[in-house]
Amino acid sequence: MAGREFFTVQSVSQALAGFRPARRTGVEKVPREAALGRVPASPVLSSSALPGFARSTVDGYAVRAADTYGASDSLPAYLDQAGAVRMGSVPPAADTAVRPGTAVQIPTGAAVPTDADAVVMIEYTQVTMPGLIEVTRPVAVGEGVVRADEDVAVGAEIAPAGRPLRAQDLGMLAAVGVTHVPVCARPRVAIVSTGDEVVPPETARLDPGQVRDATASALAAMVTEAGGEPSPRGIVADDAEALAKTLRAAVEECDMVVVSAGSSVGARDETAAAVESLGAPGIYCHGLAIKPGKPTLLAECDGVPVIGLPGNPLSALVVFRMVGLPVLRSVAGITVTPPEPATTATLTRAVASAAGRLDVVQVQVDNGPERTATPLFGFSALLSLLTSADGYVVIPEAATGLDAGSTVTVTLYR
Amino acid sequence: MAGREFFTVQSVSQALAGFRPARRTGVEKVPREAALGRVPASPVLSSSALPGFARSTVDGYAVRAADTYGASDSLPAYLDQAGAVRMGSVPPAADTAVRPGTAVQIPTGAAVPTDADAVVMIEYTQVTMPGLIEVTRPVAVGEGVVRADEDVAVGAEIAPAGRPLRAQDLGMLAAVGVTHVPVCARPRVAIVSTGDEVVPPETARLDPGQVRDATASALAAMVTEAGGEPSPRGIVADDAEALAKTLRAAVEECDMVVVSAGSSVGARDETAAAVESLGAPGIYCHGLAIKPGKPTLLAECDGVPVIGLPGNPLSALVVFRMVGLPVLRSVAGITVTPPEPATTATLTRAVASAAGRLDVVQVQVDNGPERTATPLFGFSALLSLLTSADGYVVIPEAATGLDAGSTVTVTLYR
Repeated sequence: MAGREFFTVQSVSQALAGFRPARRTGVEKVPREAALGRVPASPVLSSSALPGFARSTVDGYAVRAADTYGASDSLPAYLDQAGAVRMGSVPPAADTAVRPGTAVQIPTGAAVPTDADAVVMIEYTQVTMPGLIEVTRPVAVGEGVVRADEDVAVGAEIAPAGRPLRAQDLGMLAAVGVTHVPVCARPRVAIVSTGDEVVPPETARLDPGQVRDATASALAAMVTEAGGEPSPRGIVADDAEALAKTLRAAVEECDMVVVSAGSSVGARDETAAAVESLGAPGIYCHGLAIKPGKPTLLAECDGVPVIGLPGNPLSALVVFRMVGLPVLRSVAGITVTPPEPATTATLTRAVASAAGRLDVVQVQVDNGPERTATPLFGFSALLSLLTSADGYVVIPEAATGLDAGSTVTVTLYR
Repeated sequence: MAGREFFTVQSVSQALAGFRPARRTGVEKVPREAALGRVPASPVLSSSALPGFARSTVDGYAVRAADTYGASDSLPAYLDQAGAVRMGSVPPAADTAVRPGTAVQIPTGAAVPTDADAVVMIEYTQVTMPGLIEVTRPVAVGEGVVRADEDVAVGAEIAPAGRPLRAQDLGMLAAVGVTHVPVCARPRVAIVSTGDEVVPPETARLDPGQVRDATASALAAMVTEAGGEPSPRGIVADDAEALAKTLRAAVEECDMVVVSAGSSVGARDETAAAVESLGAPGIYCHGLAIKPGKPTLLAECDGVPVIGLPGNPLSALVVFRMVGLPVLRSVAGITVTPPEPATTATLTRAVASAAGRLDVVQVQVDNGPERTATPLFGFSALLSLLTSADGYVVIPEAATGLDAGSTVTVTLYR
């Protein structure tokens, strides 16, 4: 009975490398203000140069550099002040012409008159009599000036395809005047719970033997965090017919389907049978060499990835993080995975693991003088292990456990 | 002229330790589905035990452990099957009474009959004739069973105050039937831009000398990411009167105010004057020992923190990340700062720094055989430095630079 369900146990890395559902979401245009975290469908190119004009980087005087050569404290260069540039405008050329032997006052960020080729900082100047500027240090051509296309050239890529937009990317889009961005549509992810014992979280009083659905709420949050749009489908009783009907609708309406099976072997078998009936090519693997999470099911039904999760919430959430999120990112068009918080720490206790199996161990991190990670042990259905954990340690397939005192990498929850 | 503005330059750590605005947002109740990332205003306690009933962790038979003592393959214990427990319900006691010498079939996750004290896995049983179970291995009291309050006891803390709710926390709230959570209200953060040269990002064609407002868009995204609610206030010209009016309204209506000054020294002075007029206790410091970002201003006006950022976008965003976000988190009630992605890497080039100053160096990370961080140099107003960076390295105040080949910690953008 126990062996029956695991007819194609695969390693997690094999499964992730081999399971490549065809599904990709379409492209939609979103306004820049709503584009944080959205995924550009193609590289975003700039149609204008930035800053767009030669710009002063200092408060001082726009000059011809040659006029300052050899200037020093003891032998300053003397230049006639020929006007002043104001912020945000280019005054009539006659007012700010920088002819040989003249200087034009200019604030940081203002447009350098076209006939000047450098800006000397005000610190290296003195006004000894009105209209006459003493320059006490030479400037090279280009000094104190940002070129018109030094920040961004016309046609330059300002955001790559496939990388979720960050705060500074939105700043750059604003700087070059992009108001809308073509991005991959958010994948709709159906979340289905099964199990005769499972009742909605809103249920005020439980009968003995009933449990509230914890998995669906946590999955919805993880989907949202990863850039998807959760589509909650409620709880289906352990009934092959009802489950198949719910899953069929989910596959038709969504870009990805996640179903948490009931806890018992029978419930898991029914889930597998229902998934198998959905469409080609069907089940890719049933059983992953991961702990917790062995009874995981991966399937592709008419291009839509379907992931069957173990019945208990902790296992379900661990597997969804390790296996479901990479699939979700692929459907979402994300090719540059955002980095996750992680830290190195010293393991306080040994952890056993079987070779050929990926173990995911929940840990608490103590940021004392030496940073330590303490494994949380317990029956894998205890959700409190996950809520009291600061992060997790992955024991790779090749290892047979970790000794106390090992240095480990902890991926941190945020 | 250059020295005038920096009348109270402070180190960043001094400023963050000493600048403690009184502002805290109020408390509001939000539904669980909308609570991801929200900050519990007080510890969330469970009013019920989890799982709430003694629960089987395996598929097998509920027994009295004593009946299995001494059982082995060669000398099995024989028990009469007295019924079967179904998922999600407790059947009439008469059907599932586990009297001495009897066993009741039970699936994983089902309620263990009260008169049983262990569950033996089906793998260690055989049914040799209908109604008679052979048990080939002894079980201890409690084996195969999760106690009614083993996951969560009544009154236990399931989420601490001050730590943004994570996906698994929402799962736990669902498990114990919490539908609404009292959380700190999102701080409203006014974002004000100044500068005669600054125009809205929507401006299709710029006059020479004009730049689009990049800072406000990026700040809004950072505020959103950190759990605040951006309140964009547009662009104010370099005019003390207009600026004071805009800031006054912002202080009245919001929980925090961020103003990016114009680029020139004059514009910065006007910002300082306007902030000074807002309310007590006023300016806390003007000038921070940070590069980029020296001309930063911190003030508290009638309890509301006001942060004056440098005029150029890169400096403004660096300072807001280093100084503004800690203040925002404090106003938002966050006491447990979510971890940030970080990695160690080998610096490919030396970076100079002045002692007593915090340097924030943008870097590109190459995940080759040896992970390297390459500093991005350039005039600090180039926004492209920030968009092409993968993260940043902080050179602490005590250091005078970093040698090529140093191992550094890179905080990664996500």
